[in-house]
Amino acid sequence: MTTYSPPPVNRPINQPINNVLYAQAGGVTAVINASAAAIIETVFATPEKFGTMYGAFNGIKGILEERLIDLSRLSTEPLTAIKYQPGAIFKACRFDLDPLEHNPEQYARMLEVFKTYRIGTFFYNGGNGSMITAQKVGDYCRQHNHPVNCIGVAKTIDNDLAISHCSPGFGSAAKYLASSFLEATLDTLSMHDTSTRFFVMETMGRNTGWLTLAAGLIQDVMPDVPLILLPAERPFNQAVFLNKVKQLIEQKGYCVCAVSEGLKNQNGEYLSIANIEHTHERDYTQLGGVGYTISKLVSDTFKVKSHYAIPDYLQRSASHLVSKTDWQMAYDAGVAAVEAAKIGLHGVLPIVCIKKEHPFEWQFKNVPLKDVANLEKTVPDEFISLDGMNLTVEALHYLRPLIQGERPVPFKNGLPNIPVIEFQEVSKQLPKFKAVK
Amino acid sequence: MTTYSPPPVNRPINQPINNVLYAQAGGVTAVINASAAAIIETVFATPEKFGTMYGAFNGIKGILEERLIDLSRLSTEPLTAIKYQPGAIFKACRFDLDPLEHNPEQYARMLEVFKTYRIGTFFYNGGNGSMITAQKVGDYCRQHNHPVNCIGVAKTIDNDLAISHCSPGFGSAAKYLASSFLEATLDTLSMHDTSTRFFVMETMGRNTGWLTLAAGLIQDVMPDVPLILLPAERPFNQAVFLNKVKQLIEQKGYCVCAVSEGLKNQNGEYLSIANIEHTHERDYTQLGGVGYTISKLVSDTFKVKSHYAIPDYLQRSASHLVSKTDWQMAYDAGVAAVEAAKIGLHGVLPIVCIKKEHPFEWQFKNVPLKDVANLEKTVPDEFISLDGMNLTVEALHYLRPLIQGERPVPFKNGLPNIPVIEFQEVSKQLPKFKAVK
Repeated sequence: MTTYSPPPVNRPINQPINNVLYAQAGGVTAVINASAAAIIETVFATPEKFGTMYGAFNGIKGILEERLIDLSRLSTEPLTAIKYQPGAIFKACRFDLDPLEHNPEQYARMLEVFKTYRIGTFFYNGGNGSMITAQKVGDYCRQHNHPVNCIGVAKTIDNDLAISHCSPGFGSAAKYLASSFLEATLDTLSMHDTSTRFFVMETMGRNTGWLTLAAGLIQDVMPDVPLILLPAERPFNQAVFLNKVKQLIEQKGYCVCAVSEGLKNQNGEYLSIANIEHTHERDYTQLGGVGYTISKLVSDTFKVKSHYAIPDYLQRSASHLVSKTDWQMAYDAGVAAVEAAKIGLHGVLPIVCIKKEHPFEWQFKNVPLKDVANLEKTVPDEFISLDGMNLTVEALHYLRPLIQGERPVPFKNGLPNIPVIEFQEVSKQLPKFKAVK
Repeated sequence: MTTYSPPPVNRPINQPINNVLYAQAGGVTAVINASAAAIIETVFATPEKFGTMYGAFNGIKGILEERLIDLSRLSTEPLTAIKYQPGAIFKACRFDLDPLEHNPEQYARMLEVFKTYRIGTFFYNGGNGSMITAQKVGDYCRQHNHPVNCIGVAKTIDNDLAISHCSPGFGSAAKYLASSFLEATLDTLSMHDTSTRFFVMETMGRNTGWLTLAAGLIQDVMPDVPLILLPAERPFNQAVFLNKVKQLIEQKGYCVCAVSEGLKNQNGEYLSIANIEHTHERDYTQLGGVGYTISKLVSDTFKVKSHYAIPDYLQRSASHLVSKTDWQMAYDAGVAAVEAAKIGLHGVLPIVCIKKEHPFEWQFKNVPLKDVANLEKTVPDEFISLDGMNLTVEALHYLRPLIQGERPVPFKNGLPNIPVIEFQEVSKQLPKFKAVK
């Protein structure tokens, strides 16, 4: 455990409103902390524009609860470590602001925190949903004469961020899943004659099949692999699926499959729901288990041995198998956010645009937060084969650049050298506030 | 795809019985092919003792079916590639010889293949069960005047091989699971405040908890992690387990858990059976799914969000995250087997003995196959904490050396460079034979 406790800093009372606040929200990615490090480093490098740099624990919830970290004088060593760390270094939240009319108290409190800490720039690192929160924060503060610039920072393994070419975090999950699926396929290939004939891997991605398609990248190594992909975008047709399994097993002796956790049947119902979570203000359907459902269906139908893997969190936290391209893109997303703030932009999200295909180069373009908030980019039709159970050449062309390059973590004593970095909270200046009642 | 087709070789009729046959059996490990490469290289280096080197597809089943590969003149390039390949390079089998009295025809056929190809040395690379097969092969051949030396080559991720300090293959699975569990724990730590409070990972290892305990290695990085291990050696006590989960969540906000696929309740019944497979001569209970069972129990009891991961085949085929120590040990196991053959031993298995603790050094000692055949080494009591839900300092001391060092695979275009290596079968000289009727 590495503990970082900054020295106390005396601040003059009439300081300008130029401090910076950064927070993380939503499901983590293996590279979200590269964005965090980029923001901290770029803010540090711009003292003429920015004052004190704060992080918040648990996203907007921690802001309401005044759980802030003073990052001043954070030294190079923990900053380097942060870039390799899985999870969310400042802890992320699944918590959004309520609609203003339901909970005005929450907004008043948020404003109080922003005023107290003289936050002039707010970076919110999250997915589609978090962009709404960032927009709400900005709107409310500005309506109440607190001049804050709110900038979104993109991340999600699901790759469902609208407009952006892709989402930082996706490339690493795609690389991890494709590599793992390739290895498990060679395992199945080598055992199928007297053992497992069907292997299925369940991938994350709620309503989108981006990560499922990524498993199809193994065709670059095994062009003739007997493969079925079941992306969430296509309703599951049991008869057609079973027929393809039968054909492939007859032809090749085995069959491997990747399936979206959010696969739905012809009636639009999820095939597998792990749980329904009753949270603040809404129900959250937790998916998971469709890998088992598909595996059981095949073994029961054909009386063959089948196996299933559910990597679950392993796919979004595998810092040991990160795409170097994705890592760099996540870092660049942080830099782009600070650049947007430096030129005084507000209410924007820097999204990824392709600058050049060979060699693959990208740049960031600022789009209004409200243009991406709560949208969901599904896999386009031209990326899915006509039978709905494989990807196309266009999809391979899209996916390949995102998984290029390896950025291993350092290892220490046989394990990834990723000890918990503890940050000390600032002493509270405001009355206690409970974000969740 | 790399194809290896050896040139035709003319053999004199009165060649001595000095050819070599190598085959792989049982569930694969990430490093079993290092043993294969070691055997091939060491046999090649001993032309004064050994004639033609053959591999067999699908273990003893492929031998019965005369599915052999002539490995003569295998060049350096595929030999190097083999060492990095997951799965079983010659394909493995879940198939054992029947009892002689049930199926004498099978034994006669096996002898015919051994005689036709003048096999004087047989290496069988497998787990406990495969050692019985190797013994049967040797006994029968020798009783019928075919002088063959049968040598076992140890492998299993389960680490349940008797007498041996550990099993080649275990260290890599242990490293993969501990690393992945560490990453997923940091994920859970960073999200628990508003999301998942309980995460469980299911590990392989039928009736033994070795791989479950390996997940406990994360305590070397996170000494205070709120952790529960449920090794197969301890019957599941639901009340005691739930009480510990409650305590840990109250203290730390979250709890992570690793569980053996073969966890049993107080009545000795498996908590989760994925399937019962009816195979030749016996039923095979396929385990899997206890991760879900445990996760659901916690979420239902405490109304908290929980997640589960089932890495399944990923843990035994992760060539991208192999323990260098284990890789070297698997290679050495192959060398030791050939050394045993060179001095004319028969019916033995080279097992791992510790030569020195600091630095960690091992050597191989030959023990009779029948001393290990079908035994199962469970985790000793002194490795499991008194409450049955953690490991001890002694266990950490035992596990640590086995996961040391990284041996990454080469990557190509973003994916592990592990294309299928195709081997061409020899032209059949014998009548067709169906091993499974």
